[in-house]
Amino acid sequence: MPSKALITLLTDFGTADAFVASMKGVILGINPDATIVDITHDIPPHGIRHAAFVLKSAYRHFPKGTIHVVVVDPGVGGPRKPLLVVHPKAYFIGPDNGLFSYIYKERTKLQVYRLAGSAYRLKKYSPTFDGRDLFAPVAAWLSNGITPEKLGQKVKDYVAFPIPEPRQLKNHSLQGQVIHTDRFGNLITNITRKMIKHWTVAERIPTIMIRAQTIKGLKQFYAQANAGELCALINSDDHLEIFGSQSSARSIVNALDDEIVILR
Amino acid sequence: MPSKALITLLTDFGTADAFVASMKGVILGINPDATIVDITHDIPPHGIRHAAFVLKSAYRHFPKGTIHVVVVDPGVGGPRKPLLVVHPKAYFIGPDNGLFSYIYKERTKLQVYRLAGSAYRLKKYSPTFDGRDLFAPVAAWLSNGITPEKLGQKVKDYVAFPIPEPRQLKNHSLQGQVIHTDRFGNLITNITRKMIKHWTVAERIPTIMIRAQTIKGLKQFYAQANAGELCALINSDDHLEIFGSQSSARSIVNALDDEIVILR
Amino acid sequence: MPSKALITLLTDFGTADAFVASMKGVILGINPDATIVDITHDIPPHGIRHAAFVLKSAYRHFPKGTIHVVVVDPGVGGPRKPLLVVHPKAYFIGPDNGLFSYIYKERTKLQVYRLAGSAYRLKKYSPTFDGRDLFAPVAAWLSNGITPEKLGQKVKDYVAFPIPEPRQLKNHSLQGQVIHTDRFGNLITNITRKMIKHWTVAERIPTIMIRAQTIKGLKQFYAQANAGELCALINSDDHLEIFGSQSSARSIVNALDDEIVILR
Repeated sequence: MPSKALITLLTDFGTADAFVASMKGVILGINPDATIVDITHDIPPHGIRHAAFVLKSAYRHFPKGTIHVVVVDPGVGGPRKPLLVVHPKAYFIGPDNGLFSYIYKERTKLQVYRLAGSAYRLKKYSPTFDGRDLFAPVAAWLSNGITPEKLGQKVKDYVAFPIPEPRQLKNHSLQGQVIHTDRFGNLITNITRKMIKHWTVAERIPTIMIRAQTIKGLKQFYAQANAGELCALINSDDHLEIFGSQSSARSIVNALDDEIVILR
Repeated sequence: MPSKALITLLTDFGTADAFVASMKGVILGINPDATIVDITHDIPPHGIRHAAFVLKSAYRHFPKGTIHVVVVDPGVGGPRKPLLVVHPKAYFIGPDNGLFSYIYKERTKLQVYRLAGSAYRLKKYSPTFDGRDLFAPVAAWLSNGITPEKLGQKVKDYVAFPIPEPRQLKNHSLQGQVIHTDRFGNLITNITRKMIKHWTVAERIPTIMIRAQTIKGLKQFYAQANAGELCALINSDDHLEIFGSQSSARSIVNALDDEIVILR
Repeated sequence: MPSKALITLLTDFGTADAFVASMKGVILGINPDATIVDITHDIPPHGIRHAAFVLKSAYRHFPKGTIHVVVVDPGVGGPRKPLLVVHPKAYFIGPDNGLFSYIYKERTKLQVYRLAGSAYRLKKYSPTFDGRDLFAPVAAWLSNGITPEKLGQKVKDYVAFPIPEPRQLKNHSLQGQVIHTDRFGNLITNITRKMIKHWTVAERIPTIMIRAQTIKGLKQFYAQANAGELCALINSDDHLEIFGSQSSARSIVNALDDEIVILR
C-alpha cells in the first residue's frame, strides 16, 4: 500500500447515471481516507480492448501500490471470474475477460487471485453490478490492509486476448497495425521506439505506409507538421503514432480499427 | 457528520464551463479537508425528474452523514425556496422544486429547513448562481459543524412531484411505467422487486408487455440474453428493467419517456 | 501555499483517454496529499482563448495559493516557453501561448518564471506531453514547498492575446462583443457591470442590439424571461450575458464567435 490509499476507476459506465458515484460512495464508506481518481468512464460500451489499452497507458504513471478497479463487464453475473491481480507496482481488480492482457504480457511476476464471492462484497448484492457490489468494496478493503489471500484464492489460468505483434518483412521492413485511436483521431500503432532503433541507429529515414498514404520520416513533436499534413512521431508512451496536424489522422487515412501499418 | 466531510455534487451544468469547478473552489475555501464527489453534471438542462431519480439511486451508497448538493435550478433568483433537508442518513441541499421528491417519499422522519439568505452565503452574491453562492458554501459550513438551525428555519411545506405508482389490474396484472432511461438505453420502471413477489413465490413466469413487444420471463443478469434480444430483469436498484442485449431497449421498443409497462 | 495543497487541471485532452489520469498519477506520486480538482478537459482542441476565459471565471473562486495547471498546448515540444506565473492569489503553470492573457490583464503584481527544463520534470521525458512530464510534476513540487526560484528563471516577456475592450460610441452607446459561449448557448460579452453603471445610475432602460435582435432592459435572473424569449442580464461573473429562456441564445441570434453587441 502507498502511504495514502489511492484507488482508480476505469469503466464504460459513462458519467450521466449513478453507476460511478455509487462505486465511490461504497469505497468511501469502507475507507473514508481513500483518494479516488477517475481514469475514464468513456470506454465504448463493452470495449474490452479499448479499456485494456487505456489501462496500460495510465497505470505506469501512478505511485507504487495504487489499486486500479477496471469494470468493462458484459459477462457480469455469469461464470467469468472476478479477479485481483497483484503486480510489483500495482493492484488490478476486475472481471476475467481480457482487460488485463497488456499487464499480463508486460510482467511475469504476477499473482492472480479469484475473488471469493461472499466475504468482502456488499451484503445486499445484485448479480448485475459487480462494480459496485464486489469490485469497489474489495478495492476499499484492500486499501484498508486486508491481504489478497483473504480476498480470494490464487488461480493459474486467466483470460488474455492476443496482442498483435509487428512482424519482420523482407528488407528490414516491419508490418504493424493500429491498436488504439485517441480522441484527437491520432492512430497509435503497436510499433515501439525500440523497434525503430534499426532506423535511428543507422540514421536512415523511415517511410511509413498506411492505406493510400505514405509518410516520410518522423517528427519530434506535433507542431513540426504543417496544417493538415499527415505525419508520424514516437509518442509519449513510446509508440509510433500517426497524426494529422490540426486534424484527425483517422479521417485523413479513413482508417479501420486494426489498420495495417508498414514501416520501411 | 462522518469522520471525514463528504460532499457530493449533482447538477445540469455540464463539465465544459467553470460552473462546477467554481462550486468546488468555494467549498474547499471553507473546508479544505472536504472530499468532493461528482454524482453527475450531465443531467439534461432543467431535468428535475431525471436528477431526482439519479439522486435516489446514488445517495444510498454513500456513508452516513454525506452532504448532497443538487442544483438543477431553472427558478434560481425567483421565489422558490433554497432548502436543506436533514435525513437520518444524509443531508440534501438544493432548490425547492421537486428534486427531493423520492427522498420525501421514502422516509417520513425528515426535517426541512429553508436556508436563510445572508449569513452563510458568499458575500459577493449573484441572483443567478445559487449553486456557487449559496448551496456550495452552506454545504461546506455544514461540513464544518454549523448546525441546520443556524443555516435556516424549519418549514412544513415543500414541493414534491407525484411519483407514479403501479396499479393493480384484473387477474393480478400490474400496470407500471418507465421512470428513467440510462445511458445504455435501458428502460427502468417503477415496478420493484417486492411487487414481483407474487410471481416469484408462486413460481409463475411473468410476462412483460411494452408497446408492441412481449417479454417472457426474467433474466438474472444481462449476459443471459441473446444478442439483440429484448429482455427484462430486476436491476441492481431492485427495479424491473427492460434491456436489449448489446443494444438499446429504448430504440428497440421506440419507447417514450413515461411508456406504459404491463406485467402479468 | 494553502494549508492543504490544491491543484486544478484545465486542458483540451477530453476524458476518454489516459492523458488526464496520467497527470494525476504523476502529481500524486510526488505529493500524495494534494487535492486535485478538474476545472474542465472539454476545451475545444487548441482552444486557447476559450481556456483563458474559463480559467479567468474559475480561479477567483479557489482559495489563496491554489495551483492551476493549464494545458492547451499545440506548440508542445517547440520553442514556446513553459511558464510559472506567481500571482498574489494563485499560481498558474502552462505554456506561454496566451492562456494567461486575462490574468496578466487583471493584475500587475505578477512574477513570471520560465520553467527550467530538467530539474523537476520527469526523468523519462517526452517532447510531446509536457502536461504529464513537466507541468504536472512542477505543480506537485511547488505544492511540496519548492520555491519558484528553484523551478525557473524570471522572464519579462510573455505572450498575451489582445482582449477586446468595448468602445464608447456617440450618445453614450457602447460597442462590445461576445467573448464566450457557454454550454447552454448563453452569449457572454465583454461589457461588464461597471460599464453599465451609466444606465443604472440614471435609471435608464438599456437597449441591447445583436445581429437582427433588439432586447429592451435587463432581467435580474433567468426565470424572469418568458419561454423562448431572448433576454439579457448581468451574470454571476459581472458580465452582460444574452440568454434565451429555455433555449440557446446562440441559436436564436445565429451568433458568430465574436459577434458585435451594441448597448444604448
